[in-house]
Amino acid sequence: MSLTAHDCAALDAADPLHATRAQFCLDDAEVYLDGNSLGVLPVATAPRLAEAAQAEWGRGLIRSWNTAGWIDQPQRVGNKIARLVGAAGGTLIAADSTSINLYKVLCAAALAQSTEPGRRVILSERANFPTDLYIAESVARQYGLTLVLLDSETIDAALASHLNANVAIVMLTHVNYRTGRMQDMAAVTRRVQAAGALMVWDLAHSAGAVPVDLTTADADFAVGCGYKYLNGGPGAPAFAWVNPRHAALPQPLSGWMGHAAPFAFDTAYAPAPGIDRYLCGTPSVLALAALECGVDTVLSAEALGGMLAIRAKSLALTSLFMQLMQTRCTTFNFTCVTPDNPAERGSHVSYTTTLDGYAIMQALIARGVIGDFRAPDILRFGFTPLYTRYIDVWRAVDALAAVMTQHEWREARFQQRAAVT
Amino acid sequence: MSLTAHDCAALDAADPLHATRAQFCLDDAEVYLDGNSLGVLPVATAPRLAEAAQAEWGRGLIRSWNTAGWIDQPQRVGNKIARLVGAAGGTLIAADSTSINLYKVLCAAALAQSTEPGRRVILSERANFPTDLYIAESVARQYGLTLVLLDSETIDAALASHLNANVAIVMLTHVNYRTGRMQDMAAVTRRVQAAGALMVWDLAHSAGAVPVDLTTADADFAVGCGYKYLNGGPGAPAFAWVNPRHAALPQPLSGWMGHAAPFAFDTAYAPAPGIDRYLCGTPSVLALAALECGVDTVLSAEALGGMLAIRAKSLALTSLFMQLMQTRCTTFNFTCVTPDNPAERGSHVSYTTTLDGYAIMQALIARGVIGDFRAPDILRFGFTPLYTRYIDVWRAVDALAAVMTQHEWREARFQQRAAVT
Repeated sequence: MSLTAHDCAALDAADPLHATRAQFCLDDAEVYLDGNSLGVLPVATAPRLAEAAQAEWGRGLIRSWNTAGWIDQPQRVGNKIARLVGAAGGTLIAADSTSINLYKVLCAAALAQSTEPGRRVILSERANFPTDLYIAESVARQYGLTLVLLDSETIDAALASHLNANVAIVMLTHVNYRTGRMQDMAAVTRRVQAAGALMVWDLAHSAGAVPVDLTTADADFAVGCGYKYLNGGPGAPAFAWVNPRHAALPQPLSGWMGHAAPFAFDTAYAPAPGIDRYLCGTPSVLALAALECGVDTVLSAEALGGMLAIRAKSLALTSLFMQLMQTRCTTFNFTCVTPDNPAERGSHVSYTTTLDGYAIMQALIARGVIGDFRAPDILRFGFTPLYTRYIDVWRAVDALAAVMTQHEWREARFQQRAAVT
Repeated sequence: MSLTAHDCAALDAADPLHATRAQFCLDDAEVYLDGNSLGVLPVATAPRLAEAAQAEWGRGLIRSWNTAGWIDQPQRVGNKIARLVGAAGGTLIAADSTSINLYKVLCAAALAQSTEPGRRVILSERANFPTDLYIAESVARQYGLTLVLLDSETIDAALASHLNANVAIVMLTHVNYRTGRMQDMAAVTRRVQAAGALMVWDLAHSAGAVPVDLTTADADFAVGCGYKYLNGGPGAPAFAWVNPRHAALPQPLSGWMGHAAPFAFDTAYAPAPGIDRYLCGTPSVLALAALECGVDTVLSAEALGGMLAIRAKSLALTSLFMQLMQTRCTTFNFTCVTPDNPAERGSHVSYTTTLDGYAIMQALIARGVIGDFRAPDILRFGFTPLYTRYIDVWRAVDALAAVMTQHEWREARFQQRAAVT
């Protein structure tokens, strides 16, 4: 029993989040399934950027640090993000990049564990997002630790064999960037902490996409990305969260904004209390203004059921996609690598292919369906409930079936490799 | 013999840089002498931001990484800044904050000197910008070095007593943020390197303000700020330069953008050759677009004599200001702390006062003349030849004389302390 385009249109008509798409600059014909890489431009962002540039910077000039609230921007935007990830106010800041924030929290965690000389290992997954591993590799070198990468498909099996008294830190991404597999944050955190290790979560593919409750999970540290499901714009500032019990730990990127008295111009560094010490240099006011608009789009759903409503629609979209793929694309040898179990699924779905996945994605994009390709063999489709419709899911599978049936991906124009896919 | 307002207007009429002010959003009445803290909004920036948001992000979406050249933005903007500081193409990138870039280069320098176990000292000035000292303090702790702060007024005397075989790194700001004193970059670099130490320059108050020639000076590392004389906007991305002879050194903020093959998704970090390894996470595309507009305003002066013309006008402006202050404000006990010798002067002029400097600056701002106050006792006036006019200098001193003569600064409304001054 397969759904028709008509059925999908009916699902959209009944969707409690149907109206949120109007907050985004998207034509009706656009099927954008790459919000997990770069979220769509909110309607509010360009006017806000114009205001920040022309009124605040242009006319307010240096005075806007006070009059336009620039000085509190990392905390203000951070407190908004906090509502989406179950963090208390005053425990999360928006600034710098995910990689840099990860460096800060991993260094703090390594320092916290330096009193346990037997704990020499940072544990992560080989399948983790590469930049996380690169940063962990650097922090491990700096603190004389060893980075051990888990290979198992399930984190349970991997932890069973590797989580022991040597482990100082476990660093995992909540939703894997390739497979879309989601970890049980509370259970994994409990298990890691029971073994005496500290738990660091990367929420890059979670914040704004799936319900996250850092406080209830009682995690130790978390970082996340501003330009995916938070719709903050290309290269938007990222965020860092630290459990208040670790708030007294130092981090090494000790810039002026993290000082206890940033305008006293002391020569010695004295870290601010709490999360403010995770600020370093001056973050871009324009970039944070755009990020705030993006976060506001997610917060706008609070009146419609918030992250639970977003999650319900996300699962409906990904389930529909997987079902339609099974019905209409089963002969093309795509292998779904995203868990069938909804509890283990984030908000994107991925398939491996033995064919030229890059060319297939290019041919699909030429048909107006934008997903992405991740080397070596992954076709990835992200679903953003605030603007992805059920009819988009139907159109995407329909287009992919056409690309495959009509061998469009074999055309020479789709074979070239570009710098970024 | 004192100049009149009429004389100043005549100087403006004859100024070869007179027309460059039209590139900025400034009313005729505005006297903005704080471009050394936050440069003025260029006319081109708001339209460029709208284009980057609406066309590139909004319509191009993820494709713009290739089609709009986002992926090369840090290098493209970096190469433009390179022309202003005497750096070769491909040796300077724009990304992250000044503090973070300083951390990167200081770590690289510390690592380079780790083969010299006798060299245990990072030398800087107590009067350096605090965030530089905070970062150096952190790097010193990390590498087991000692941060020693020089107290002498002249760097020559300070180096004579402290530059010895124990020194690994000398980190100085080219133009001091308080006094406006400029170091002789070539001479100091030569002296430091002759003693076996590495030379790190902070160009925060130099880039776009005074001629800098990193290549001829043969410095080791440099960082600088995008939001002062480069007019990149509040919290604009900063820059990092590394002498090509040090390009093989690693730096610890090893994010994906600094990888040799950022799209291969390798699990192990392999740094890109050259300056690209100083990239970490994804920088804000919007912030870099604004920075590029700001840098372009400085490059636009290349046809009018470039940094030499900017320097000539800068010295004329600061000299005029100092002369008018001496003529018209001599009875108010302001003490000039900026060198009288033009060769030792950057592009701002500072005075200490034993009165309430904060209130004096507030009263001056209320008269439409914007400078800034730096705790505990500094009144600071920045001169940006691209948009500061001779008549602005005259108006500024005229307003300050009125503030003092009429005791305006004693009014209650100017006594409050705001968060940022």
